[in-house]
Amino acid sequence: MGSRPVAWTLIDQLLAGSSNALAQIISRVENESPQAPSLLDALYPHSGTAYRLGITGPPGVGKSTLVDKLIKLYREASLKLGILSVDPTSPFTGGALLGDRLRMSNHQLDEGVFIRSMATRGETGGLAARTQEVGDVLDAAGFDVLIFETVGVGQVELDVVETVDTTMVVLVPESGDEIQLMKAGILEIADVLVINKSDREGAGRLRRLLEQMLALKENDSPWKTPVCMTSATQGDGIAELGELLGSHQAYLEKSGRQEHNRRQRVRQKVEMLVDREVLADFWNQDRRDALDTGLETMAPYKLARSILDMS
Amino acid sequence: MGSRPVAWTLIDQLLAGSSNALAQIISRVENESPQAPSLLDALYPHSGTAYRLGITGPPGVGKSTLVDKLIKLYREASLKLGILSVDPTSPFTGGALLGDRLRMSNHQLDEGVFIRSMATRGETGGLAARTQEVGDVLDAAGFDVLIFETVGVGQVELDVVETVDTTMVVLVPESGDEIQLMKAGILEIADVLVINKSDREGAGRLRRLLEQMLALKENDSPWKTPVCMTSATQGDGIAELGELLGSHQAYLEKSGRQEHNRRQRVRQKVEMLVDREVLADFWNQDRRDALDTGLETMAPYKLARSILDMS
Repeated sequence: MGSRPVAWTLIDQLLAGSSNALAQIISRVENESPQAPSLLDALYPHSGTAYRLGITGPPGVGKSTLVDKLIKLYREASLKLGILSVDPTSPFTGGALLGDRLRMSNHQLDEGVFIRSMATRGETGGLAARTQEVGDVLDAAGFDVLIFETVGVGQVELDVVETVDTTMVVLVPESGDEIQLMKAGILEIADVLVINKSDREGAGRLRRLLEQMLALKENDSPWKTPVCMTSATQGDGIAELGELLGSHQAYLEKSGRQEHNRRQRVRQKVEMLVDREVLADFWNQDRRDALDTGLETMAPYKLARSILDMS
Repeated sequence: MGSRPVAWTLIDQLLAGSSNALAQIISRVENESPQAPSLLDALYPHSGTAYRLGITGPPGVGKSTLVDKLIKLYREASLKLGILSVDPTSPFTGGALLGDRLRMSNHQLDEGVFIRSMATRGETGGLAARTQEVGDVLDAAGFDVLIFETVGVGQVELDVVETVDTTMVVLVPESGDEIQLMKAGILEIADVLVINKSDREGAGRLRRLLEQMLALKENDSPWKTPVCMTSATQGDGIAELGELLGSHQAYLEKSGRQEHNRRQRVRQKVEMLVDREVLADFWNQDRRDALDTGLETMAPYKLARSILDMS
């Protein structure tokens, strides 16, 4: 939370549409440069209008291909898109990079498409937050749609999709009880369910299963989660998917949910910033030492109590 | 962190081997009863000797069947086992319950096997911690082996396996680039890799791929992660797996890693208890109000700073 002078020129350039300024600001946010907080605060009044779509689901269901088709769909409507791939598993995988390289080659000459892989830098805690911030920069820069694509279905991914406007969960027809059960957990976060590779055997069965489970779900929301069948590689079902996403976006705007989501995102961010600093202040050298020493002699709750009681 | 009187009778009964006392204490820990902290502190000097095995991997790879076979293997050696299934996805799934019911029927008359599903109660934050605490109770009660089985490969699961002695990652032969890449991330946490359903096509190819990636992994640890082929439903490879786990356990004891792991578990727990209370103290009504009001008028970093500067 630095108080360094804001690089106003950079801000002005970004707001005027400079892709060079965009790249520079995003790189400062990603690298957690000391300028990042004031840059983000300066951009804050200009953001909040982009539609945020989260795409999650198990590995191997074809999320990347689906995203590629959605890019084309939104570009045909002349919308500017930011795609943020979140890969918390490992800096070692380069997980999202491969998919990116493929997409980069499809869209690299298109200034209306910004693609970035967000990977951990040692710690996973800040990944969801940093991804949001890159999204906020794109939002302020006038991007209309932000797609947050996640590689898995873990906690970091849930943190990422929790604050989007529409959460799209992608599945494929498959057997295996455990997978079926996992899907049940996924139902709770999904605004739109997609069965990709729906030309495969079992797609109809999975659809019926999901619809039965959705019917059981206690829910007084006026939005009823639809199930959409796609075959992304063939492009089948993409137009229908686009329409469903459009309906959900319209529902969000009309119901005030989009504004609610935006406020929730900001609230969580401020809480996170405060929490981080409160804890950093608390854990001074004396308390760290007390922890080290106490571990030799005291039981955990008693030790915690004694550290909390230190003045 | 209550200071209520410890239920010494219950503790004595537990240490004397009462399964009734065990059930009562675990239920207090699970329900976060006010007595739980002093019960756990009283048991603390009696715990720390159980061998903790974490089993993770994508859904559908047959983890439950593998665990079932490992139970039989360890029971043949007359070891007492606790199995804790962690399912953070949803209270709605009852994910682990199905698998449990199956295993319960195999082991329900065996007092040497304790099986429990740990699911979220609304919040995911405390699940890994609560699972550890149930493990600590079993440890104090004289259980020799604790198996932490996770349903997915998300953050909560990583939190759970991070503090075990041996992390076993289970995969199955499959195609799909994304899955292959995910496995790369998994390599970093695996002490033992298992290719289950190894009678399927592609098992040899996957093994070679994993061994190549393991060879690339920068690592000066004297422990070299082995790849074990199993077909859990047929029972193939289970004896070899048991031997590999035994070698890793022996390595941990000899190298002092087991003691190091135990200390890390306790340290993280104390930090978590302290952090939780520090933040609860900080966020008093005045600061909550300042957050609510500030969200209307201020940019996030500036608002965070102003809350931190309140006296």
